[in-house]
Amino acid sequence: MTTRAASVKTPFFMPVATRGAVKSLEPAEVAATGAQVLLANTYHLHLAPGEKTVKKLGGLHSFSGWNGPILTDSGGFQVFSLAHVRKITEDGVTFKDPASGQMVVITPEKSMQIQLDLGSDIIMAFDDLTGLDPAKAKVRTEEAVERTHRWLLRCIAEFNKLTAKTPKAKRPLLFGIAQGGLNKELRQKSVEFVQSTEVDGLAIGGLSVGEGTKDMHDMLEFLAPLYDPTKIRYLMGVGEPGNLKFAIEHGIDMFDCVLPTRNGRHGSVWVSGDKKLNLKNGQFAASKGPIDKNCDCHACQQGYSRAFLRHLFKAADPLAGKLASLHNLRYLQRICEDYR
Amino acid sequence: MTTRAASVKTPFFMPVATRGAVKSLEPAEVAATGAQVLLANTYHLHLAPGEKTVKKLGGLHSFSGWNGPILTDSGGFQVFSLAHVRKITEDGVTFKDPASGQMVVITPEKSMQIQLDLGSDIIMAFDDLTGLDPAKAKVRTEEAVERTHRWLLRCIAEFNKLTAKTPKAKRPLLFGIAQGGLNKELRQKSVEFVQSTEVDGLAIGGLSVGEGTKDMHDMLEFLAPLYDPTKIRYLMGVGEPGNLKFAIEHGIDMFDCVLPTRNGRHGSVWVSGDKKLNLKNGQFAASKGPIDKNCDCHACQQGYSRAFLRHLFKAADPLAGKLASLHNLRYLQRICEDYR
Repeated sequence: MTTRAASVKTPFFMPVATRGAVKSLEPAEVAATGAQVLLANTYHLHLAPGEKTVKKLGGLHSFSGWNGPILTDSGGFQVFSLAHVRKITEDGVTFKDPASGQMVVITPEKSMQIQLDLGSDIIMAFDDLTGLDPAKAKVRTEEAVERTHRWLLRCIAEFNKLTAKTPKAKRPLLFGIAQGGLNKELRQKSVEFVQSTEVDGLAIGGLSVGEGTKDMHDMLEFLAPLYDPTKIRYLMGVGEPGNLKFAIEHGIDMFDCVLPTRNGRHGSVWVSGDKKLNLKNGQFAASKGPIDKNCDCHACQQGYSRAFLRHLFKAADPLAGKLASLHNLRYLQRICEDYR
Repeated sequence: MTTRAASVKTPFFMPVATRGAVKSLEPAEVAATGAQVLLANTYHLHLAPGEKTVKKLGGLHSFSGWNGPILTDSGGFQVFSLAHVRKITEDGVTFKDPASGQMVVITPEKSMQIQLDLGSDIIMAFDDLTGLDPAKAKVRTEEAVERTHRWLLRCIAEFNKLTAKTPKAKRPLLFGIAQGGLNKELRQKSVEFVQSTEVDGLAIGGLSVGEGTKDMHDMLEFLAPLYDPTKIRYLMGVGEPGNLKFAIEHGIDMFDCVLPTRNGRHGSVWVSGDKKLNLKNGQFAASKGPIDKNCDCHACQQGYSRAFLRHLFKAADPLAGKLASLHNLRYLQRICEDYR
């Protein structure tokens, strides 16, 4: 996949740099795990420090020190999952900034402006998400899919307007998001709609939000034959090794997920065979070996023992979460490399 | 100064690795600041994971990944400052482990055993500390000095017993601690007593515990002509740039302090001229420059802006505290290097 920042190899996994940085990690450390593209959150960066400040400081790359491609999400998922007071209308979403208490409005047009100001290399269309509440699901899912499509057209129009003076090669990519919950008819309609537009990539949104693994895999299997071979496919929010493998084998090119870093900070690490260990467990108190003797991550190669890591977790030293994050990120990158 | 782990250049500053690691930093990152020797806390490591576990894992160097010399304090200061329930007798100190609630006894002999089991390269004698409470100070200070001297003799005897089979070159160094509060007569007596024993170094304890700068400097000035030129001098707990300079100019070789790392984690950094800035301040919200344009630390050389660091502090990302810690550690090491 070619972006204005660099060309990258698929399939790939994007570490989540919520506020521009992957928690506790320096850009060079993230790159050393094999990461090629970072994901940053529009919602968080819009609230603080604000896209105008980031722009003034030279954009996200210069601000954060990450020189590779950056994808920004549209803010839709965070409004859905984090904002407590929100109102969705045809125009966009209104929610309360938890920090300032002020009401904030994000529309498809606003999302394009924010992401362009941030200096993103891969911009996501602003979508309307539904939860999995079965009582509301049927009506809301269809409504949300239709709205997501109308919003996509507004995103494309605004994106084209705002980038009109930018030479094609210097423009970011724009991805559309297909929704539809667990309804196959709606999903097919949505994938086909997104692919019929001029977007550079197709994202599958609204999966990995609490449905079972079987439901997710069923849907990925169903969608696989529908993909346009000329467009990149991005499965949003997926990062469990098993799901990653299944999705890669069903045509997915890109992933992002907070799991490797969030789990890592809580002491949970993947080891050979996709097994999970919790480094805080007492069984590791005198364990001399590294997290995984087959692993080539920084933490394992430096020879930090499970006992030392457990000790650091017990002492609440952020170094523990950092090393476990690096391990988990490398674990997922290795899966991607194996498929390449 | 020559230790069994390596020879190091004086004057030097020891970063504090309370539980074997300098909070949020890898050993190689600490070494890159110019640090030659780490200080680890006997009190904390005795409570968790315990010196027997550390010994089983190959000692502190192997456990923590720090290959240079390690100094362990005796535990006395932590019992004085951290343990709420404690009883001091001629035998030693009894206190309550805040985590387990169990009563723990540390005697001069026990302190030697713990530090030797940890694998320390520079072992501190177990001392009796007094606070600065003026009501108790006179009697207690004299009593504490006398006891510190009796305990030093017990430490030396136990150290010699436990290391009897170790060739001289493979033995750790042993330092005695002079006490005496702000009483010059007692201080002189204590310095002379410690220097009259076979210890390798003289530590000045019980300063930088809340007395004013003037009182501390007065005492350092008073003690300077009394030092035995054949023994290394270590001023415990000092790390303010001004105090470091004053002490170096008055014959001190070694320092340790939590300030550079603790302050760093709270956003406070030293910049040229020993000024302090707080990176959390709003004034840095759009500040493009590094912490200090004259600084050669990792954070400044990588070009992380004050604005980015402020943003990370606001987001409670441990990366902020890590980078500020590295900056502050380098600040103190540069002072030491300048004097060398």
